[in-house]
Amino acid sequence: MGAAIERAAVVGAGVIGSAWAARFALHGVDVKVLDPNPDTERILGEVFDNARAAWGALDLPSVPEGAVEIVETYDEACNDAQWVQESAPENVEMKRSILQQIDDACDHDAVIASSTSGIKPSDLQKGMSHPWRLLVGHPFNPVYLLPLVEVCGGEPTGKDIIERAMEVYASVSMKPLHVRVEIDAFIADRLLEAVWRESLWLVNDGVATTEEIDDAIRYGFGLRWAQMGLFETYRVAGGEGGMGHFVRQFGPTLSWPWTKLMDVPELTDELIDTIEQQSEAQSGAHSIRELERIRDQNLVGILRALEANDWGAGETLAKQRDSLSSN
Amino acid sequence: MGAAIERAAVVGAGVIGSAWAARFALHGVDVKVLDPNPDTERILGEVFDNARAAWGALDLPSVPEGAVEIVETYDEACNDAQWVQESAPENVEMKRSILQQIDDACDHDAVIASSTSGIKPSDLQKGMSHPWRLLVGHPFNPVYLLPLVEVCGGEPTGKDIIERAMEVYASVSMKPLHVRVEIDAFIADRLLEAVWRESLWLVNDGVATTEEIDDAIRYGFGLRWAQMGLFETYRVAGGEGGMGHFVRQFGPTLSWPWTKLMDVPELTDELIDTIEQQSEAQSGAHSIRELERIRDQNLVGILRALEANDWGAGETLAKQRDSLSSN
Repeated sequence: MGAAIERAAVVGAGVIGSAWAARFALHGVDVKVLDPNPDTERILGEVFDNARAAWGALDLPSVPEGAVEIVETYDEACNDAQWVQESAPENVEMKRSILQQIDDACDHDAVIASSTSGIKPSDLQKGMSHPWRLLVGHPFNPVYLLPLVEVCGGEPTGKDIIERAMEVYASVSMKPLHVRVEIDAFIADRLLEAVWRESLWLVNDGVATTEEIDDAIRYGFGLRWAQMGLFETYRVAGGEGGMGHFVRQFGPTLSWPWTKLMDVPELTDELIDTIEQQSEAQSGAHSIRELERIRDQNLVGILRALEANDWGAGETLAKQRDSLSSN
Repeated sequence: MGAAIERAAVVGAGVIGSAWAARFALHGVDVKVLDPNPDTERILGEVFDNARAAWGALDLPSVPEGAVEIVETYDEACNDAQWVQESAPENVEMKRSILQQIDDACDHDAVIASSTSGIKPSDLQKGMSHPWRLLVGHPFNPVYLLPLVEVCGGEPTGKDIIERAMEVYASVSMKPLHVRVEIDAFIADRLLEAVWRESLWLVNDGVATTEEIDDAIRYGFGLRWAQMGLFETYRVAGGEGGMGHFVRQFGPTLSWPWTKLMDVPELTDELIDTIEQQSEAQSGAHSIRELERIRDQNLVGILRALEANDWGAGETLAKQRDSLSSN
């Protein structure tokens, strides 16, 4: 077993890119990192500390870490990489320019993946010399702990490239989900966007604070979603009547005037200030570093609990354990 | 410590009502149960089996269970109850009629709570003789395991009644969340509704199956939401820039044409069949009973993991342990 690649490049090394580097390196893959930010070394170091701590808390077998090198040019980053993961800011023009430079610097066999959470791969492929080798591999923060990665090809993406992506991501212990139809925001972020909009209305209209909304999630349906998601939960709720019964029963409420989602709340300075102040009142007692540690400890605990039940993300973790120990 | 009430009535004993009965009885509260369904005894028995199994798996101290009695009339159910929890089907007319009969049968001091997930308390209070003692106490399935209960009063609801509800629910180890502004669907179901609509579109348009949508949730952001919810997660993602920075960055994408939520998908027989078939392919290998057990085992594991970190729903569990052992 072990990783399906030996050498990767990470282009863009903020929170997401650095965590990709950690996931690759902790699976024994050598990683070259390219980012113009002078703080790159510090950010990488902090994210690697978190990732190694999570690894330890998960009691995962440790394999010799891949070598990590911060480089200065696209050539140094990409010339011998088998896999390039781009994680630049969400700006189409910027990403296109970066992807073209990656494309030009890469070996013919290399595959290029973009971490974009919302831009269609077809929109990124415009202007690339070899668009067939570009796909989206959209991960979830913290990338060294959460298994999901959405894999989506554009019009020109080769079928073999998608297959290769599924194999490479699985080999670094992820759960690749092939998004078969190319849509903006893929699947998960469509759902997140819906909740985000509705939540902004609730704050905007003074119905609930950020803390009350978070509590409504994490003491209730958030606990269900960590293990079953939406439809399977409702299937169980529907009881012996099954899913069709549940949907028919739930159905009529869909036309009730519950939602204000038809409209987008204007992000005025006032609304942003309100959110900022409420978030500060809610979480300000902890620094971001502390919150990261708390989050990671919770995720580790949840993943181990699911592993003990051989279920969902816990199954992915069990595979990771096997894969790393047979390395 | 212990429960703040000694005698409760549960009116409507499907999956939700039966689980209320279990939560009350396992905290030592006597419960009278009223439901015209001839299967009530069987359903109650199955839910109590699940609840006792969860209690055991959580290693909670067991206190002498309250006496549970299925009765035939509103008078028998309500005449000495201090708390009545109504969990009838989501139909305004039916609920109004039931609540009026409860109101007439209850002692002056009794409080009446409706489990409705979407109807405003003010709409339920119409026609009641003592509307001031009615509030909504909206729980989440499985009620014997998930701590959240949304507490919402209507126009006439007494302030002391809300305070009493917060006290009573906390005393049976729940996390009562006061919904201060009366809106349809309260807080959690507004968010669930948003995700449900978007998910229906994804299935309707053939973008993703029910299983793919569930996987997009439970291998990714579902794991985050079990412990932090939406805003605190984004606060961490925003890094040192903080929440305001994050919102400003996220902001522009809000106006992207990602969502189809402006419109409601028509629940045609064809769409319902599709959902039913996909759900069968996804989960049909397990019976509903098995899925309930799997769900409960996962929830137990997640709750214990969060308890070990003294966080979120795990804190509620720790309090439950204390409260039951000092009983």
